[in-house]
Amino acid sequence: LIREDGSELALDIKRPTLLIDRERALRNLERMAARVARFGLRFRPHFKTHQSPAIGNWFRDFGVRRIAVSSVTMARLFASEGWDDITIAFPVNLREIDELRPLAEKVRLGLLVDSVEVADAVDRGLSSAADAWIKVDAGYGRAGADWNDERALLDLAGRIGSSRRLRLSGILSHNGLTYLERSVEGVKRAHADALSKLLSAKRLLREAGFPQCDLSIGDTPSASIAEEFGGADEIRPGNFIFYDVMQAEIGSCTVEDVAVAVACPVVGVYPRRGSAVVYGGAAHLSAQSMTGSEGIRSYGEARTQWPGWGRTEGFVSAVSQEHGVVRGEYAWLESLSPGGTVFVVPVHSCLTCDLHGSYTTLEGDTLQRLRID
Amino acid sequence: LIREDGSELALDIKRPTLLIDRERALRNLERMAARVARFGLRFRPHFKTHQSPAIGNWFRDFGVRRIAVSSVTMARLFASEGWDDITIAFPVNLREIDELRPLAEKVRLGLLVDSVEVADAVDRGLSSAADAWIKVDAGYGRAGADWNDERALLDLAGRIGSSRRLRLSGILSHNGLTYLERSVEGVKRAHADALSKLLSAKRLLREAGFPQCDLSIGDTPSASIAEEFGGADEIRPGNFIFYDVMQAEIGSCTVEDVAVAVACPVVGVYPRRGSAVVYGGAAHLSAQSMTGSEGIRSYGEARTQWPGWGRTEGFVSAVSQEHGVVRGEYAWLESLSPGGTVFVVPVHSCLTCDLHGSYTTLEGDTLQRLRID
Repeated sequence: LIREDGSELALDIKRPTLLIDRERALRNLERMAARVARFGLRFRPHFKTHQSPAIGNWFRDFGVRRIAVSSVTMARLFASEGWDDITIAFPVNLREIDELRPLAEKVRLGLLVDSVEVADAVDRGLSSAADAWIKVDAGYGRAGADWNDERALLDLAGRIGSSRRLRLSGILSHNGLTYLERSVEGVKRAHADALSKLLSAKRLLREAGFPQCDLSIGDTPSASIAEEFGGADEIRPGNFIFYDVMQAEIGSCTVEDVAVAVACPVVGVYPRRGSAVVYGGAAHLSAQSMTGSEGIRSYGEARTQWPGWGRTEGFVSAVSQEHGVVRGEYAWLESLSPGGTVFVVPVHSCLTCDLHGSYTTLEGDTLQRLRID
Repeated sequence: LIREDGSELALDIKRPTLLIDRERALRNLERMAARVARFGLRFRPHFKTHQSPAIGNWFRDFGVRRIAVSSVTMARLFASEGWDDITIAFPVNLREIDELRPLAEKVRLGLLVDSVEVADAVDRGLSSAADAWIKVDAGYGRAGADWNDERALLDLAGRIGSSRRLRLSGILSHNGLTYLERSVEGVKRAHADALSKLLSAKRLLREAGFPQCDLSIGDTPSASIAEEFGGADEIRPGNFIFYDVMQAEIGSCTVEDVAVAVACPVVGVYPRRGSAVVYGGAAHLSAQSMTGSEGIRSYGEARTQWPGWGRTEGFVSAVSQEHGVVRGEYAWLESLSPGGTVFVVPVHSCLTCDLHGSYTTLEGDTLQRLRID
């Protein structure tokens, strides 16, 4: 394990171990906080990426007081860590209404609704006020009311407006389409397209008598790249704190910005076959792959030094539950040996981190993640 | 939740919950045990699939005393559950030699080696005897010495034979190529091809003065389908206890044999968009997908009754960290509502189960998995 400044660190890697480069993460955070300030947005970072109380505290140092999470469980656990303005950026799960009730009593809670049925059920289920965001789909096609379904948006805003417990905060959207782009220009275009749709929905509601209607948007590519956010009020990126190979491919960052990697013991070396095998498979990296510009499927970039500024030496071409197959040039493979370590920079850091109970810093400290069973 | 006999069960599903149908799992186990007996093989089931002490005990009732696992951690935890004949069916991780030493003192331990360097290092590191299996690759291309590299096989057998601690058990292989097949005939062909290669390697070693050389093979498709195992001594299938959609597609089972499913709360219904959204994403199902015979990518089959014998109503077409997008016919989607439950039958049950801390039986009991951090 060799640092960027050339100094060596001796972490005793026995099993696949999730490493974090604190300096890189803080640099990513600082850069994003500066962008958010520059564009006059409210910053509500998504904590599903790191799910760590200690890393959450780094955000406090940048003045962050509002957060987003993706489950009631995460909201409850971060509330117990002292966070008191939490949006659950996931459609309300009515089966957890009994868990939502005490949470809304304890913190300023933001909830996502996209139908009057759910709004009614939430209103009946709560005993105190909560912020309601109308979840809107601007073309991604996952959750939310259609951005141009005026009837649905007005009905929903009206129902929230006349409810006992819910306060209309505005409309909220996640533009997953930017993750399909592979260039800065592409991300800007996809962002501008979604933003104009969302602004028309916001205008509709403001003009229909909901002057307090705000707009919250959320994806890391737009948050990292776009230069125009006019009309948006809040931004909720999460992945940027670590970034990953996918974000580098999109253009949100470089591979040198990626702040996490999995240290994997080498268990087999087969240069003639063009491969090596590491202890580190779908159980440690996730089964998420990406197809790079050369049409090759990858489960992560592989290198013998991390963090480091040199070129990537190999990639993970296949994963089983515990095995990762690493490919690279003959000379590099031949330099590996069983008992050595390969560092895998993940394709999708949120999913990779979700498979580990803690982070190990380059200084050897352990940062626990929330215990979600 | 409706059982096959029509009786209703009321499990209170709040969050994505891994369900197990004990009867189906026992039926799968009984069928496999009967096949293994019919072919005169030793049965060493792979416990990486279930990783549960309670489910392990079901195997004891079928006379199973030997098991395979895929990590030193699993070996240690199952040893503490009283299992005393354990093969770690994963290349030796030299970084865990300090954990292997006490384990080899405690149980009959089988280890996989595929180079003289690793064999030497293991021999030096242990303080008591262990079984050594030469890991052989018969064309899959993951780990192991090449089946036809006579020099490597003879060197390795010789080195093990002259070692202090290692006892040569034979050669061991996993034929991952059968997972690429999509028909019973295809699996039989891929199995016969690998078996003939492995038998030639076994013959080589037996004739070179290693008469005790056995052959251990392992994949679930061959174990479920093939009718010819002549020359093999031991078989190590794991997935068969649960099976999954992938195994049904291969022909190892039917979807009605699959003994696990994830109950996912419905959080959004969009029939006009052809979809619904459930609380159940890559964090609960895994990011493993498969492309079915119609060229459609699926992360699992989706249905409103499980277990049940009716046709599958939908499938998971995309996953985010916590979201699953479910697709199906308009009428079925329209019948769903937020607050309802959809059951997802996994593509790859090993990976799905690995994301959960426990199983919930249809009777409402909890079966813990090993706690692997």
